[in-house]
Amino acid sequence: MTITEAVEFLETGGNFTIICHANPDGDTLGSAYALCGALRIAGKRARVLCADKVSPRFDFLKKCLSDGDGVFPPEENETVIAVDVADAALFGGYEKEYGGKVDLCIDHHVSNKFYAARTLLDENASATAEIVWELIKRMGLTPTAEIAAAVYTGISTDTGCFRYSNTTAKSHVITAELMGYGFDMQGINHVMFDMKTRERVALEKEALNNIKYHFGGRCAVIAVTRDMYENIDPEDMNGVSALPRQIEGVDAGLVIKEKGDNIWKASLRTSGRVDAQAVCSKLGGGGHLRAAGCTLKGDFDAVKSTLLNEIEKQLYNNST
Amino acid sequence: MTITEAVEFLETGGNFTIICHANPDGDTLGSAYALCGALRIAGKRARVLCADKVSPRFDFLKKCLSDGDGVFPPEENETVIAVDVADAALFGGYEKEYGGKVDLCIDHHVSNKFYAARTLLDENASATAEIVWELIKRMGLTPTAEIAAAVYTGISTDTGCFRYSNTTAKSHVITAELMGYGFDMQGINHVMFDMKTRERVALEKEALNNIKYHFGGRCAVIAVTRDMYENIDPEDMNGVSALPRQIEGVDAGLVIKEKGDNIWKASLRTSGRVDAQAVCSKLGGGGHLRAAGCTLKGDFDAVKSTLLNEIEKQLYNNST
Repeated sequence: MTITEAVEFLETGGNFTIICHANPDGDTLGSAYALCGALRIAGKRARVLCADKVSPRFDFLKKCLSDGDGVFPPEENETVIAVDVADAALFGGYEKEYGGKVDLCIDHHVSNKFYAARTLLDENASATAEIVWELIKRMGLTPTAEIAAAVYTGISTDTGCFRYSNTTAKSHVITAELMGYGFDMQGINHVMFDMKTRERVALEKEALNNIKYHFGGRCAVIAVTRDMYENIDPEDMNGVSALPRQIEGVDAGLVIKEKGDNIWKASLRTSGRVDAQAVCSKLGGGGHLRAAGCTLKGDFDAVKSTLLNEIEKQLYNNST
Repeated sequence: MTITEAVEFLETGGNFTIICHANPDGDTLGSAYALCGALRIAGKRARVLCADKVSPRFDFLKKCLSDGDGVFPPEENETVIAVDVADAALFGGYEKEYGGKVDLCIDHHVSNKFYAARTLLDENASATAEIVWELIKRMGLTPTAEIAAAVYTGISTDTGCFRYSNTTAKSHVITAELMGYGFDMQGINHVMFDMKTRERVALEKEALNNIKYHFGGRCAVIAVTRDMYENIDPEDMNGVSALPRQIEGVDAGLVIKEKGDNIWKASLRTSGRVDAQAVCSKLGGGGHLRAAGCTLKGDFDAVKSTLLNEIEKQLYNNST
């Protein structure tokens, strides 16, 4: 549907339940809280749901909801909105209850499954929060600083603070506009991009202690055993998966994580001429050109050589 | 001087020597190459000088100079411009030759010493490159994608890729405009913000291996001995100084670096209620509220307890 139709839908509806994806990130949460706060400013009842525990890092987003009401009169229908959720399966614990009755999905993923009655999709948006911001403005509402902060959180986290290739001129234009609302940008940036948990620091230490270089430094490999990642947040693990490819000269950064007895999950990130997807799909996995994964069985050394063998083909087939 | 006067000065002058500060960063280099490229488009002779070796990471900036000439006819005078240099002492090896004959200084540092005949200072600019960009546009020149990339490099590096508190709405507005020129933003971001040298990775490993927590995790201390930082770029060392304060719960992040026999340089970064400047000035050093340093003599344990003693006062005086 078009943005104008979505605005009309929001203006005529009521009792909004806004659902985030499971394993929630800054974009799904920032989009949900910004939209919820805006709908309350418009005099609507609205609430946010997320199946998974939300990290306390995101507690400040709740300030979007200081006004208004999220309790619906039991005799009235609710309107279900999904934000930043490409597939109803990503609702997690809420899939059963809400998967089949989403009235509007607002999203920016190319992979959107069109599971909702209406879908407002803009795959050129760097973040769903960009679309939400446009909706709020088109509805003629006056956003609070807290709502601007939530939209900023969505855009900045999904673009890696304006580092990734999905960052567009529009992301910067909207951010300039958001900054006019005077929220604590630096505080958000510290928590989102600077701060590391002690568990993450300990894991990085172990990871750096066992890093091995191959093929003249073009491939770096880190092994993560089960004892290393107890109590680790998935987000922290993600930071560690990015580590080996950050090293100068490394075209293939490989993290091999122990999932169970003789079961290993490989995560490969590449640059230059190495196709991560090609390596992992040969071994029963998949992914993208620059980031892919696969699961392998066997002892660590066997698994590692299987992977290095495929990586070697990529490194040398394509660069000669 | 005003920006209009600076434009007139550039339009009437010729044979421009543009000087960067020693130990050059992305802003001084990005500003210099962007301005030099623009002056050449305006049909002027112009060249860039820097006293210190420039990291190969910045090689792409030279593409700004693909057109035009940097060799001056010997009988003509040169016009000397300093970019992003707050004090002639920061010229390094060029201080003696050029320190006293700077015709125009373009800068954004509040601490500018007004050593030049003319100074165009905007302390609200996040980077000198912002000012250079405005000059180029006011001169009515059509920048190339390479010049836009150089300006982007200045803004993005001085703001920590839009993370630091000096980032303004204007930084984002200009960046949106720059992106319209179609340079390889992601390539620049990878080299500037993602890539780590193998030496840096090795140093981080050693640093994380000897990290110690004090005062219930509110202070984290890393010792860097001389054998750990051989062959380390100052920029890499800077990244390590930031490490301890990034850890969740840490209000005082301390790095103690061995400078010589029983000589230690302490670098303290703080958050919350801890005043880094207060700690370091008591010990003969100085700096800012959030980042300060001092040099101490003695064996490591003695130096460390002296520092912890002052940090403890800050942690507990102010939080009770």
